[in-house]
Amino acid sequence: MMTFEQSLDIICENIGKIDYPQHPDLLYAPIRYILELGGKRVRPALTLLACSLYKDNVSDAIEPALAWEVFHNFTLMHDDVMDQADIRRGKPTVHKVWNKNTAILSGDSMLILAYRIMAKAPSGIVKSLLELFSKTAAEICEGQQLDMEFETRLDVTEKEYLEMIRLKTAVMIGACLKTGAMIGGAKMSDISSLYEFGINLGLAFQIQDDLLDIYGDPVIFGKATGGDILCNKKTYFLVNALQRAEEEDKIFLLNRLEAKSYDDNEKIREITALYNRLQLREQAEKKMMSLYNKSISELEMVDLPESKKAVLYEFAGQLIERKY
Amino acid sequence: MMTFEQSLDIICENIGKIDYPQHPDLLYAPIRYILELGGKRVRPALTLLACSLYKDNVSDAIEPALAWEVFHNFTLMHDDVMDQADIRRGKPTVHKVWNKNTAILSGDSMLILAYRIMAKAPSGIVKSLLELFSKTAAEICEGQQLDMEFETRLDVTEKEYLEMIRLKTAVMIGACLKTGAMIGGAKMSDISSLYEFGINLGLAFQIQDDLLDIYGDPVIFGKATGGDILCNKKTYFLVNALQRAEEEDKIFLLNRLEAKSYDDNEKIREITALYNRLQLREQAEKKMMSLYNKSISELEMVDLPESKKAVLYEFAGQLIERKY
Repeated sequence: MMTFEQSLDIICENIGKIDYPQHPDLLYAPIRYILELGGKRVRPALTLLACSLYKDNVSDAIEPALAWEVFHNFTLMHDDVMDQADIRRGKPTVHKVWNKNTAILSGDSMLILAYRIMAKAPSGIVKSLLELFSKTAAEICEGQQLDMEFETRLDVTEKEYLEMIRLKTAVMIGACLKTGAMIGGAKMSDISSLYEFGINLGLAFQIQDDLLDIYGDPVIFGKATGGDILCNKKTYFLVNALQRAEEEDKIFLLNRLEAKSYDDNEKIREITALYNRLQLREQAEKKMMSLYNKSISELEMVDLPESKKAVLYEFAGQLIERKY
Repeated sequence: MMTFEQSLDIICENIGKIDYPQHPDLLYAPIRYILELGGKRVRPALTLLACSLYKDNVSDAIEPALAWEVFHNFTLMHDDVMDQADIRRGKPTVHKVWNKNTAILSGDSMLILAYRIMAKAPSGIVKSLLELFSKTAAEICEGQQLDMEFETRLDVTEKEYLEMIRLKTAVMIGACLKTGAMIGGAKMSDISSLYEFGINLGLAFQIQDDLLDIYGDPVIFGKATGGDILCNKKTYFLVNALQRAEEEDKIFLLNRLEAKSYDDNEKIREITALYNRLQLREQAEKKMMSLYNKSISELEMVDLPESKKAVLYEFAGQLIERKY
């Protein structure tokens, strides 16, 4: 058993040791760049934590954990191209530092690198891990596809939205935990419960992200609020507002979404007021808590002493208590 | 043992049966589209042929062969985005039918699909095959990167050019043959010789492609000549011309490369005349034959009766005899 911080330390210590070629420099420098940008490294840390529930020596889980982190950063590199995002973790994105072709091709190399690292897992389990990896990777692409399709749709339902964030965000959290549990030698039912714990926590996390974008304290949250509103992002809020707003509210909302020129603060203020009128904050908090509670009941079903699981309870609690 | 046509028949019969999801349609329709565009299917056919040298039942090699074909088409989908190519096999490219984001994301899904298909190989050998697959895939990305870098360079050497086409084109031919030989249970020295046969044949093939673009009969070749010349592509010819042209010729060549407006036929005629003055056709034919001969001596080292290897001798011969 280990703490979340110990797990993070192992990841941070090993991420710089990932082995890939130096040449051609223009292909591999962007991989180094994005891996060195930092990020919370939550996903690989969860792999180690899940493994540590079942055995003290987590060294077999280090490479698979790193494979997930490399894969995660590959998705960021390609998503940033597709979303035309200029900034990632406070720094220019790969396609801004270099160009789009470099971001596409280095991303491809990074996906291949992730497979190569995952393939270093212990031989008895590598086949199952690669299956999980491929299945999850395919789902994440499906999630990104749905997210892009939602951009041009006004009739996205809450159910569709939840399926999109399940694919785009939650399955990787579940799969990272499952990877660690599998390497730790957990029994099938535990592996499955930890996966579902991750899925539900991932969903709760994403809804909280949507909440924080509107109601978060910019100082504590670390970025200005209203970003999702300004770019008309199909969040839990906008999707539900489009479904539930009636008559004048609906016309007002559609007008605001279509307006080409507007005052940023006014748009944020007016749309937030609409969300408030529709009581979407309460609805989102309720949905988030329900998903969080579902994740906790999955964790309760994991057949281990509570003392062992404490670290995951704590992790889930902290995630959900991110301050407004 | 089987003929090349029998091998192709098996591939064509099975390529439509590749299993992938239907939803989201916008993610998977481009995969279906590019796989149904056709193509020569030479790579997967070589995998089956190499396997058939060692055992009559090639069924274990079908999935790995298809994995190579899916991977090959993934590279085409992303390369077409990077090269801004509008036409592939006479039809609009994926990013023209849909858009660039779709081509990027469907391509990613296709790379993952290729891994999933390769992972269906017999369990005793799947680890080695995945290693070969990842190593080769990484090399092919390196080749594409070098090819893109060459676009803005005027000092590419013949040696660098050969290394680029080795990575971009030849290693996949070698790896397809190696995959089949491994599944067939060939001994190490045969596996290695067949790989080298493929590498050298792939290099010879690419140089012949460069030759055909200039000296090919448009009717027999199936496309207009001079395409590489018009887009200043760094072929075997242009690379050598830039290295060897002197004084007036060099100035003339650099001027032609920089000219923004010109008559197509005149540019083709003038640059071909320069290639002729520099005797590059003879040099290219000599290089191609030397690589072809190298491939044949590798094939000779494969420890099988000549009658078994006849199909590969014939394949190599036909490749090299593509008419001008």
